[in-house]
Formats: sequence, structure tokens, C-alpha cells
Amino acid sequence: MPEPPIAHKVKILFLDVDGTLTDGVIGFTKDGDLRHFWVRDGLALEWARDAGILPVVISGRDSLAVAARMHDLRLEHYLGIKDKVAIAEKVLARTGVKWNECAMVGDDLPDVPLFRRVGWPIAVCDGAAEVMPFVKSITKARAGAGAVREAVEMLLRHNGKWDDVLQRYEAL
Amino acid sequence: MPEPPIAHKVKILFLDVDGTLTDGVIGFTKDGDLRHFWVRDGLALEWARDAGILPVVISGRDSLAVAARMHDLRLEHYLGIKDKVAIAEKVLARTGVKWNECAMVGDDLPDVPLFRRVGWPIAVCDGAAEVMPFVKSITKARAGAGAVREAVEMLLRHNGKWDDVLQRYEAL
Amino acid sequence: MPEPPIAHKVKILFLDVDGTLTDGVIGFTKDGDLRHFWVRDGLALEWARDAGILPVVISGRDSLAVAARMHDLRLEHYLGIKDKVAIAEKVLARTGVKWNECAMVGDDLPDVPLFRRVGWPIAVCDGAAEVMPFVKSITKARAGAGAVREAVEMLLRHNGKWDDVLQRYEAL
Amino acid sequence: MPEPPIAHKVKILFLDVDGTLTDGVIGFTKDGDLRHFWVRDGLALEWARDAGILPVVISGRDSLAVAARMHDLRLEHYLGIKDKVAIAEKVLARTGVKWNECAMVGDDLPDVPLFRRVGWPIAVCDGAAEVMPFVKSITKARAGAGAVREAVEMLLRHNGKWDDVLQRYEAL
Repeated sequence: MPEPPIAHKVKILFLDVDGTLTDGVIGFTKDGDLRHFWVRDGLALEWARDAGILPVVISGRDSLAVAARMHDLRLEHYLGIKDKVAIAEKVLARTGVKWNECAMVGDDLPDVPLFRRVGWPIAVCDGAAEVMPFVKSITKARAGAGAVREAVEMLLRHNGKWDDVLQRYEAL
Repeated sequence: MPEPPIAHKVKILFLDVDGTLTDGVIGFTKDGDLRHFWVRDGLALEWARDAGILPVVISGRDSLAVAARMHDLRLEHYLGIKDKVAIAEKVLARTGVKWNECAMVGDDLPDVPLFRRVGWPIAVCDGAAEVMPFVKSITKARAGAGAVREAVEMLLRHNGKWDDVLQRYEAL
Repeated sequence: MPEPPIAHKVKILFLDVDGTLTDGVIGFTKDGDLRHFWVRDGLALEWARDAGILPVVISGRDSLAVAARMHDLRLEHYLGIKDKVAIAEKVLARTGVKWNECAMVGDDLPDVPLFRRVGWPIAVCDGAAEVMPFVKSITKARAGAGAVREAVEMLLRHNGKWDDVLQRYEAL
Repeated sequence: MPEPPIAHKVKILFLDVDGTLTDGVIGFTKDGDLRHFWVRDGLALEWARDAGILPVVISGRDSLAVAARMHDLRLEHYLGIKDKVAIAEKVLARTGVKWNECAMVGDDLPDVPLFRRVGWPIAVCDGAAEVMPFVKSITKARAGAGAVREAVEMLLRHNGKWDDVLQRYEAL
């Protein structure tokens, strides 16, 4: 196993939406938009929160479909955000967490400014080639098909909390 | 062909929903959620019921979309269930069926407590790696793309009922 | 190129829906069902009709979503049909076409009775293994992803009408 | 890198919809149709416009779902068009752009008349085999999964504008 990219515990996990928490598809009907999320990603974000890692979702696009999923998972979220760094800085100021105690999962160029600032930048394996030079980890699973679950497991193992998850389900 | 994992006939088939009867996608629009089921899985569950295996669906998440499919297939179902074992025990008490006469198809950690109790635990091939040590069979087909059809065929062959299905369609 | 399976021209093309004209997914929201069709399949069925092959859709399941697509393509269709052979016989009686002038594209056991009667039975490549012994052709493309387009092209070439299609689009 | 197929800058990018901007799926519910677009394609079209390439969408099919996405991206669009060449000629007359300053991304036979006229015809890699003889480039990414993003990047590099995109995201 490679050296973990940061020495301290992860306290905040920033997440992009389209192409990260979804498979990148933006569905449309005449009544509005549709997104495809992944059941095991959502469950993992509940585990993260229970284990003391705050998930914070920041998306460049506004969407009623994304908002519906965010409420379903009760996630702190910011949609339609042009300056993702400014939002993240407000979260850090409020929580007292430092950049190097944050991870970020993303897939495309708008995520690079955050990738350059957090301690543990993570790209989904089917993300844009242009972002790969800016991350420390790349998931094996694709976006909307386990990438976020995999990232959360990686962070929980790093924080020493993964066995708590297994124990909850008689799986240790 | 390997030895069947149980000696007696299967009487109940417990089923998870997300990532087992679906492909794991949880779609969202502003009006609510969407699920992707698989036509040949549903048909197989009708065959199971006709052949004396009772399908019982137990899901950790509540969902109006899932409920709509359950009514479409007229399946006994329990949604939004935190303690899957407690529900299953009530079904066993009502029917007089024993744990070792039950099979279960699932994909993730919340299914492990049932996997540990039923006679024939079955994982979908694209399930979480953590559940694989707790199952006796793994499907070749992916969830939401034939895994449940394959599991039902396996059980019907075991119960000696598969040829009845073929005969119904002039396919023997 | 192998010998064509029938000597005379094809006049009717019977089609299954789920897993043949769709990818097998039956989507559900609280408001009803969803199906995934394929743009190039629909266009090919227009070419078939223009070239004198009548497409007739027969499905075992009733569905408002399927009905919407059928109206969109103005296809003769029968949904919720338990006895597909009886419906097909009525179509043959009305049109004076013989079984050996018919082709059929399907994917699963309920299609076998028609496969056994038509002159040119065709399975989609991702159909159920149990149907393969009953067909004369298997598409290379998957259902809901080009299988019907491929079948139509095969029939139009057989009937000597494919070049008309290419000519229409300046592609000869 | 191969010689670029045209010597001058690209000023207009014509785009097909189904099977080019979407994955080819035409979803249906009882309430109408559904399309699957791709987040990174849409973002790339914004970059194209900012960099002086006008995207113009021309589709043979009319669709309220497609119209909703077009408004979301504020794209010039023409739906339900039988004669794509006539529409394109009107756009050229209005803008004063010449055929050899246009690119076109498409997937199927109805796109061939435009492929034969534009300077830089581009097919998506999962397009119909029949169109491939008429194009100068074929994307590596599939339709509805990055093909248009890839085409836009190719055009922006050709026009000398790609580094502007990278710079905007601190990714140079």
C-alpha cells in the first residue's frame, strides 16, 4: 500500500456532482432534468458523516434533480457555484478545518482550483485527462458507479474508522 | 456442476432492491426518484412464485418508484427497513419456513446479516467485495441485468422445476 | 456471406419490445414506467415500412411508455398479449402473408412460439441463452443499441432494397 | 499528429442530436420523451462559443426533451428538420461563413449530406458504419459520453484557443 498522501486525519470531503456523484449523464424531459446517482455512494456518505468526516457538495450547475438527491441524503450542498474556492473557504472558516485536512473528489477542469488546494485531491477514473496531473489518487471505480464509495472507504481506512462500518453489519 | 449448497428445496427467496433488482442507479428528477429494473428478472420472479418459491423483497430504503414496481409485479415487499433480520423472522414465523430453506440475493454490507442466516446466500457479481466471503454463490450476470433471473433459474433447477418453465414456452 | 435462411422476400417483421426494441430496462417512477428505445432502430423501422416490410410489434406486457413510443413511430402494436401466436395469425389472415414470409426479432422464452413459426427467426445477441437454438440469425448489436437496425438492414439487403436507403441520403 | 483537415479556422460547428449529443437512447414515459446528454459535452460547447466557434444544432426529430436541453445550454437549434442542408445554408447566408469553415459532428445516414459539404466532417466512434467513408475525423469517445467534448477540444486546438480554456481553470 502506498504512503497515504497526508499525515493527519481527513475532516472534510468536498464533492463535485456531475461526473463525480453521477455518471455524467444529464437527462432531460420536457419537465426538467434527471440525474443518475449510485446507491452505494450515498450509503458511504452516511458512513463518512457518522465517522466524523463532513461531506460538502459543490457544483457548478444548478439543478432541481440534484437538489432532490441532496435533500434525500441530507448533504450540505452548494449548486450553481462559479467560484468553488470561495465557497470552500467559507466552509473552512466556519468549521476551523485547514485545507490539508480536506479531501476532494472531482472529474473535470472546474475542479482543478480545489484539487490544487486540498490535502488529498482524488479524481474519478473516467474523469477528464486534463485533471489527472493535479490529483494524488485516482479511483478504480467509475463515477456514478462506485467512485465515491471507494474514495470514502479510502478515507475511512486512513482515519482508522473502516472496521466500525464492517462491525455495524456483522461483517468483520 | 458443484454440489448444491443445501440439500432441501428452497421455499423463500429474499431479495434486496438497489444494486440487486436494480443496476444500483438511483435516478432523481425534481418530482422524485427513478429506478432501473430488468424485464427478465421480473418474469423470472413470476416463474418462481408459480413454482412454489415465495419471493420476499426487503430494502433498506423507502421509495415510491420501487413501490410502483413492486405493485406491478405483485411482490411481497418491505421498504425502508433498518433491521432486515427482524422482518425476515416474521415472514418465517408466518410461513413456517426455516432459515435453511431460504435463499437471499443481495449486493452490499446491509445484506450480510441475512446472508449469514439463510441456507443459500447469493451475491450479484458486481456487488461490494466485502460481502463475497459471506455467500455460497455469485451470479455471472450483473445486477439489474440478469442477476436475479440467473439466481431464480439456479433455484428452480435445484427444486426440479426448470423444465416446467421451458415447457410453457414450447422450448423443451 | 452465409446462405439467406429463406428464399422469398420478407413481408412482415414481428418485433418483441422489452429486451428487443429496448435495452431490457423497465424504469419506474411513482408516476409510472419508463423505457429506453434507440434512435437508429426507430429510423430503420421507417425504412422497412417505406420498402414494403410491415413491422408489427407484439409485447407480453402492457405499458403506457411503450404505447407512447409506438404512437411516435406510428407502428402497428399489440401490448399485454399472452398468446403472441394468436395475434400473429390474425395479422397473417388479414394481410394474406404466409409464416415463411415473416421475420421475428426477440430475446426471451415468450418469443419461442413465434420463432418456431416464422421463416426467419432472429435473436438479439444479448437475449436469453435458451432461445438461441430456435433462431436462424443472431444480431451483433445489443438490444436497444442497434439490434433492430441491424436486423432491418439484413432484411432490406435480402429484399434488394438497401441501396434505396443509401441513395436517399447521398450515401451510395 | 496528422495534418489538420482544413487550413483555416473553424467558425461554425454543426451538431446532430440523437446518437451525437445523446447516447442514442430515446426514453419514453406516458408523459413524453427523455434524452441522455453528457455534462462535459455541454461545458465544451460553452467554451466553443466563448472562443468564437458558433455551435448550431440541427436534428431530424422534434422533441420537447431536446428543446429543454437546448434552452438550458442556450444553443441555436433546429428540430424536426427533414432537409438539414437547407437549414445550414440559411445559417451560412446569415453569418457569411463558408462551408469549408464549418465542422459537423454526426452519427448516421441523415448526417451524410452535411458531412459531404462541411470542411471538417467528424463522426462519433459508435456511429453507423455507413457514414465513416464520408468523414475526416472519428472521435475516440462515444456519443453522449464525451464525443462532442473531444471534437470541441480538437477544434479549439486547431484554432489556437485550447490554452485559454486551461488557463481559466488554473490548469495550464
